Amino acid sequence: MFEKNESFLELGFAKLDCSRQRRTGLPEIVFAQTKEISQLKEIIISFKKNKVPLFLSRLSKEQYLRLKKHFKDLKYFSAARIGFLGKPYPKTGKTVSLVTAGTSDIPVAEEAGVFLEILGNKVERIFDAGVAGVHRILSFKNKIDRSKIIIVVAGMEGALASLVSGITKRPVIGVPTSIGYGASFNGLASLLGMLNSCSLGVCVVNIDNGLGAGYLAHTIINSDI
Amino acid sequence: MFEKNESFLELGFAKLDCSRQRRTGLPEIVFAQTKEISQLKEIIISFKKNKVPLFLSRLSKEQYLRLKKHFKDLKYFSAARIGFLGKPYPKTGKTVSLVTAGTSDIPVAEEAGVFLEILGNKVERIFDAGVAGVHRILSFKNKIDRSKIIIVVAGMEGALASLVSGITKRPVIGVPTSIGYGASFNGLASLLGMLNSCSLGVCVVNIDNGLGAGYLAHTIINSDI
Amino acid sequence: MFEKNESFLELGFAKLDCSRQRRTGLPEIVFAQTKEISQLKEIIISFKKNKVPLFLSRLSKEQYLRLKKHFKDLKYFSAARIGFLGKPYPKTGKTVSLVTAGTSDIPVAEEAGVFLEILGNKVERIFDAGVAGVHRILSFKNKIDRSKIIIVVAGMEGALASLVSGITKRPVIGVPTSIGYGASFNGLASLLGMLNSCSLGVCVVNIDNGLGAGYLAHTIINSDI
Amino acid sequence: MFEKNESFLELGFAKLDCSRQRRTGLPEIVFAQTKEISQLKEIIISFKKNKVPLFLSRLSKEQYLRLKKHFKDLKYFSAARIGFLGKPYPKTGKTVSLVTAGTSDIPVAEEAGVFLEILGNKVERIFDAGVAGVHRILSFKNKIDRSKIIIVVAGMEGALASLVSGITKRPVIGVPTSIGYGASFNGLASLLGMLNSCSLGVCVVNIDNGLGAGYLAHTIINSDI
Amino acid sequence: MFEKNESFLELGFAKLDCSRQRRTGLPEIVFAQTKEISQLKEIIISFKKNKVPLFLSRLSKEQYLRLKKHFKDLKYFSAARIGFLGKPYPKTGKTVSLVTAGTSDIPVAEEAGVFLEILGNKVERIFDAGVAGVHRILSFKNKIDRSKIIIVVAGMEGALASLVSGITKRPVIGVPTSIGYGASFNGLASLLGMLNSCSLGVCVVNIDNGLGAGYLAHTIINSDI
Amino acid sequence: MFEKNESFLELGFAKLDCSRQRRTGLPEIVFAQTKEISQLKEIIISFKKNKVPLFLSRLSKEQYLRLKKHFKDLKYFSAARIGFLGKPYPKTGKTVSLVTAGTSDIPVAEEAGVFLEILGNKVERIFDAGVAGVHRILSFKNKIDRSKIIIVVAGMEGALASLVSGITKRPVIGVPTSIGYGASFNGLASLLGMLNSCSLGVCVVNIDNGLGAGYLAHTIINSDI
Amino acid sequence: MFEKNESFLELGFAKLDCSRQRRTGLPEIVFAQTKEISQLKEIIISFKKNKVPLFLSRLSKEQYLRLKKHFKDLKYFSAARIGFLGKPYPKTGKTVSLVTAGTSDIPVAEEAGVFLEILGNKVERIFDAGVAGVHRILSFKNKIDRSKIIIVVAGMEGALASLVSGITKRPVIGVPTSIGYGASFNGLASLLGMLNSCSLGVCVVNIDNGLGAGYLAHTIINSDI
Amino acid sequence: MFEKNESFLELGFAKLDCSRQRRTGLPEIVFAQTKEISQLKEIIISFKKNKVPLFLSRLSKEQYLRLKKHFKDLKYFSAARIGFLGKPYPKTGKTVSLVTAGTSDIPVAEEAGVFLEILGNKVERIFDAGVAGVHRILSFKNKIDRSKIIIVVAGMEGALASLVSGITKRPVIGVPTSIGYGASFNGLASLLGMLNSCSLGVCVVNIDNGLGAGYLAHTIINSDI
Repeated sequence: MFEKNESFLELGFAKLDCSRQRRTGLPEIVFAQTKEISQLKEIIISFKKNKVPLFLSRLSKEQYLRLKKHFKDLKYFSAARIGFLGKPYPKTGKTVSLVTAGTSDIPVAEEAGVFLEILGNKVERIFDAGVAGVHRILSFKNKIDRSKIIIVVAGMEGALASLVSGITKRPVIGVPTSIGYGASFNGLASLLGMLNSCSLGVCVVNIDNGLGAGYLAHTIINSDI
Repeated sequence: MFEKNESFLELGFAKLDCSRQRRTGLPEIVFAQTKEISQLKEIIISFKKNKVPLFLSRLSKEQYLRLKKHFKDLKYFSAARIGFLGKPYPKTGKTVSLVTAGTSDIPVAEEAGVFLEILGNKVERIFDAGVAGVHRILSFKNKIDRSKIIIVVAGMEGALASLVSGITKRPVIGVPTSIGYGASFNGLASLLGMLNSCSLGVCVVNIDNGLGAGYLAHTIINSDI
Repeated sequence: MFEKNESFLELGFAKLDCSRQRRTGLPEIVFAQTKEISQLKEIIISFKKNKVPLFLSRLSKEQYLRLKKHFKDLKYFSAARIGFLGKPYPKTGKTVSLVTAGTSDIPVAEEAGVFLEILGNKVERIFDAGVAGVHRILSFKNKIDRSKIIIVVAGMEGALASLVSGITKRPVIGVPTSIGYGASFNGLASLLGMLNSCSLGVCVVNIDNGLGAGYLAHTIINSDI
Repeated sequence: MFEKNESFLELGFAKLDCSRQRRTGLPEIVFAQTKEISQLKEIIISFKKNKVPLFLSRLSKEQYLRLKKHFKDLKYFSAARIGFLGKPYPKTGKTVSLVTAGTSDIPVAEEAGVFLEILGNKVERIFDAGVAGVHRILSFKNKIDRSKIIIVVAGMEGALASLVSGITKRPVIGVPTSIGYGASFNGLASLLGMLNSCSLGVCVVNIDNGLGAGYLAHTIINSDI
Repeated sequence: MFEKNESFLELGFAKLDCSRQRRTGLPEIVFAQTKEISQLKEIIISFKKNKVPLFLSRLSKEQYLRLKKHFKDLKYFSAARIGFLGKPYPKTGKTVSLVTAGTSDIPVAEEAGVFLEILGNKVERIFDAGVAGVHRILSFKNKIDRSKIIIVVAGMEGALASLVSGITKRPVIGVPTSIGYGASFNGLASLLGMLNSCSLGVCVVNIDNGLGAGYLAHTIINSDI
Repeated sequence: MFEKNESFLELGFAKLDCSRQRRTGLPEIVFAQTKEISQLKEIIISFKKNKVPLFLSRLSKEQYLRLKKHFKDLKYFSAARIGFLGKPYPKTGKTVSLVTAGTSDIPVAEEAGVFLEILGNKVERIFDAGVAGVHRILSFKNKIDRSKIIIVVAGMEGALASLVSGITKRPVIGVPTSIGYGASFNGLASLLGMLNSCSLGVCVVNIDNGLGAGYLAHTIINSDI
Repeated sequence: MFEKNESFLELGFAKLDCSRQRRTGLPEIVFAQTKEISQLKEIIISFKKNKVPLFLSRLSKEQYLRLKKHFKDLKYFSAARIGFLGKPYPKTGKTVSLVTAGTSDIPVAEEAGVFLEILGNKVERIFDAGVAGVHRILSFKNKIDRSKIIIVVAGMEGALASLVSGITKRPVIGVPTSIGYGASFNGLASLLGMLNSCSLGVCVVNIDNGLGAGYLAHTIINSDI
Repeated sequence: MFEKNESFLELGFAKLDCSRQRRTGLPEIVFAQTKEISQLKEIIISFKKNKVPLFLSRLSKEQYLRLKKHFKDLKYFSAARIGFLGKPYPKTGKTVSLVTAGTSDIPVAEEAGVFLEILGNKVERIFDAGVAGVHRILSFKNKIDRSKIIIVVAGMEGALASLVSGITKRPVIGVPTSIGYGASFNGLASLLGMLNSCSLGVCVVNIDNGLGAGYLAHTIINSDI
């Protein structure tokens, strides 16, 4: 009933989940932000040895440049702070709409966008379309309807997720961001706004968790559903 | 320069602010909810003696029925839980749009609506027009633009205030309501949503404070501005 | 009585979103909990006249019994507090796993379960399988993998959503519930737990929002994705 | 019924709301704090091309100095961190009182003050008049009564908004600030204080949102009300 | 160095602090609200046997009526929900001003007022003098200055404590109350307001803790300071 | 009716964890508060059939009386709201000190006390020994030192846990309770107080979770450590 | 009855409260932390011109050194971050006990200590006497009883205020500090702990507000009470 | 220099608890993070003079390097930020399992690990075994069962503590960490998760308080229980 001991690589400070690809069909993603360079190097070496692809999320430019010296094939997507080691995935032919309320929400959105593109999906970007000028998002209704799922990234009051969900029959993944000040309380206002959406059909991931939204979207649209 | 000692009536448990009408141009409003019948009776008698109009807010049906026996001229507006003693105010010729996101927000909205009508204003009601079906509020854009100010009453994520503010040049007073459940935290989600509006031109009053919104709207549109 | 508009029916206290079926492929759902019987009656009459199906969510037994006298064809699902007017939907052939951490989470789960079944989906119920005895949920791994999507309903610490997501490649919708006491703060602990899931592939809806999870699941698995 | 696609300028990372002036009678305001210089330059060029005025809010001195090299006509108001491109607006003949509780609240207040002055209004500044020495604000009662609207900017307990509202018939816009420490919780104490004002006639904007207060005040006093 | 075991009476469910009178000069006060009648009876009997006075705080009318049957000399002050067994204390010749912002704050204030009077102090009541009509409290400045200490009881935004402290050189004890609704969050707004008082010379006790304020005031003015 | 599985009994609405006794050496504990009588009956029947002991926690008197009719051997401990089915456990010879700050904390404490006694431990009760009269708890220092572990149950500020931990070398389990009012925020103050104990050697369980403390204490003192 | 307009000095950015000495018997205290050097210089010049003493609180070493160049008679107390201009006050003959729970609480305590000493009081310092080793504070009981009032400064769980209040009949002013980590939430735990003191006779000031405690203590012990 | 007292060393800024070893069987632990070098030096000198061992917790590398110059025998454990002066403790023969959910939780875990090892215990480290790949922790079940107690260190949703507790009969001490972002709110999510554990047998210490967990574990397993 249980997985065997062989299903992870023991590095002492980390147990690399080599069975993830088999279990979930998706590559291992290592959260780089709080890891030291020596740890990241050891992780990368293990993955290369096992010939499985590796994503590094929240990888800073500084971390990347230091790793690049050792791993020439490490690709870096600076807008998304994503590092990637591996071969490009085949095209899936699926499209995701990626909508942001403001310009400042783009870095979070790109975590999803870059992830989805690496995995072979098409991403339709609609940036800076917040509810203060509702005609902007309404003009993209057809484009939205033609994608399989919509990711809405918004800080401040996060109202855009409800609104988009109300104009389409597609599922909406809301990503609250910490963009805002004062009573935004680092994204709490947007998070609560999306959770209380008066439109059914919206689900939410953690504040600033663009990657989680991208991962979930890929899972949903590429399962044999 | 300062008000004189005579400017309030001392009842012991209350100091009735008889100078409010003179100072602010608006009648005294007594918060009835936490007061006992005997206190309310004493207050009403004092006002009648001084021939100044009196509003009783958050007056329950039970309180009203008990007071009615003693004060035949006490009017009651049950949807708004407002009691009123005094003569009708002259028409101001001004119009306020009163918008709610849902049906459940109507009692809070009517606190504003009834107050504004008693003071002589016209109220344009647009109820149940939340962002889950944005075509509803958009179809009222012209009506909204023709009113002097808009009061938006919404629970859950409170997104309607931002949206309305974005489609009109009129000022918007947002009233968050405690309608919702779970992570609405009794109106906190809606309150934070309205405070973080990405559309400038929105201000906010306390959760469920329909009366405050009506009072403020009347002050704004009827000053010699 | 109706001010006919292309896209909604105007009842004064409500604007019925008749275009929802067309826009989103799903029936209108009316939140019954805060509505009066007279309002619910008027809404039902409108829907019957327009021959569109109607869901009433959070409909209490008391409300149901009073409405039943007038509308003999109103069906009621007491565990889910759902009322339904309309014909059964055709089978979709899709399966959703519906998992709860405890017995007390079942009423919230059934909001999703009943909704999904009415709309023609198959629901695989796995109740009371929380992490305190992890062998329980592990024994259902195969069943979970065979369903298209999993809804995990859990109060207290909400850990079950992360765990389920880690053992399957299917997307997981987490529904935190208000079950618990003390530092559960009415579901906040579970909500935060699910939002911070260390397993990618989890999204979250509002506390106790079983209906929202069911709606979203149906949308995801029945789109032409 | 909806706005046309032409109503905004597509820059990819931003959709400039060129129709705002037409829709709301007020210029577009771009939040500069979280934008990169390259983005700000592209935005400015677009606005200059379209010959519409532009406000840049929360523009740091550093950002300004770098932009100044390219746009000689960019004006900067350092106390208010506002950048402005465009011709001076005609005088409106309207006056706003701008009151602060302390000296530290002045930067937030000047966001409102400078904005209002650029748009042609007169601003009457009354700074450092908190309730700890109530005789200070009382000595300005006449000045306050002669202005059309009052903006009260206060951190700590935010009591000044209630007090000012109680001595005048003019509407009051409260701006809580993050000035304070300990249990001020970055402005939360002041925000809650103003929202719970025992004086009707007070509305509130976000913590430190001086600009929002100035915008709203201008909207109120310059509509054809 | 330590107190001996004899300094309390062991009742099993309670250890009555008989040494309090000796240690602190004040009688034992038993919080009645959460105690059962049988427990209260046992406590009273113990105190009567030891001939020390006893205060029962938060004693409901129901509890009092049941106890009255057994203890004829039990006095009850219903406005303050205080029960008292013992002889009147000698007059101290000291005066405390007891100020409330509204009528609804009176029950909390009377906890302090009745306690102080039983202990022999004079209480000067100034009720319903909130900042919405600041002329009211200002007209009592002389009376306030002549008392030794001022207790300010206020819900909603709690601004009255700061204001009173600013007009007198006497120390101010602030008692936030849970009066209010919405964003008062059961007294949190008032509590934070008083803690952030911009006027030095204000201290605060727990929300609705009138008794604590009375106790502290008595301690301060009756020490051999 | 049962889908037999090696490790749990499937009741549909519950999966009874029959392997818990084997896995953890402790009986299954069913949280009764949110379960219906019919569910409890089915659970009891299953346990009786399997001849394993059963604890029912948070069992109300009403629930007990209804169950008693069917299960004559169901024991009930009303102070602790615990129901028990099974034979008495053998004496362990271990002692736990059970300390409360006040009388109102006793019901929570008895959840631990009764549980520990049923499992064969000795419980030393020291009730109403809060820090307001520190001589009380100090007089029990020897008794405390002679027990294996101390459970401290306290509401309000929860200071007693730190204090007890400082006077003994025994480990302390703190149980914050919801006793208090105002800024106790239903036990939050006590919870935070215990978590921030300046004395090492204190751990904490959920607010009002007396049972959890008793369970943990039993586990610690009865392991083959 | 009211103060005259002349009672403050208008500096534009500040209104110096020159009547405070007369009104409250205490000097003006200017919060230096958020003020610019140019503002502080202008304020100092005004006070010197008017020959009234001036306290500068939260004055950083950097600010002091820059001001020192211009005002040779500016005294600085670095532990307390207090600057002072004026002649020493006459001895009052009163003593205050100043107690801290830990070493890290000393800077906050010294705000009170230095302030009280400058105003002529004697300060008895008892530092690092937290409840983890309760014998420490108990050994100072006599010293505490001989002072007029006690200031207790404590972070983490703040339990020391309750404990001290329980062993003396003197009033206690609690100062919660932000010392701690994790669930101390920057002093919230200590603040709530002190507010919920189970010992009557404790009042509280803002987190880290040592100055406020010193000011209040001076007011209490030096009034003609 | 020292005011000798039976039970503590008086340093003025600190009262060193020399009786702790005698009272609790464990050495004094000084929280170094907020202390100055001069204070730490004075403390070390006192301990060396009294020949008692000393732990310095949260000692930064910078602090260590400066102290090292004066105290050559000061040992430093950088991963745990612990300094230690004294002789190694004898082996206890007891084992503690130290489990972390992720790699980033290791520094907090090592506070416990190093402390336990210095005191003579064996520590079994199982790092990076979070619930996202549950097979990892399950593969260590036997190892866990053979240790006397388990410390589980986890950020994000903290679910690992419940899970481990469910698979073993050993007591579990949960240490929430501040690892995470967004709605982790600096460890609040993990703290609440562990407090609401659906598995009995879990207790919790403060966020990031690895030391407290190690201290408690040592106390539990080394008492003469």
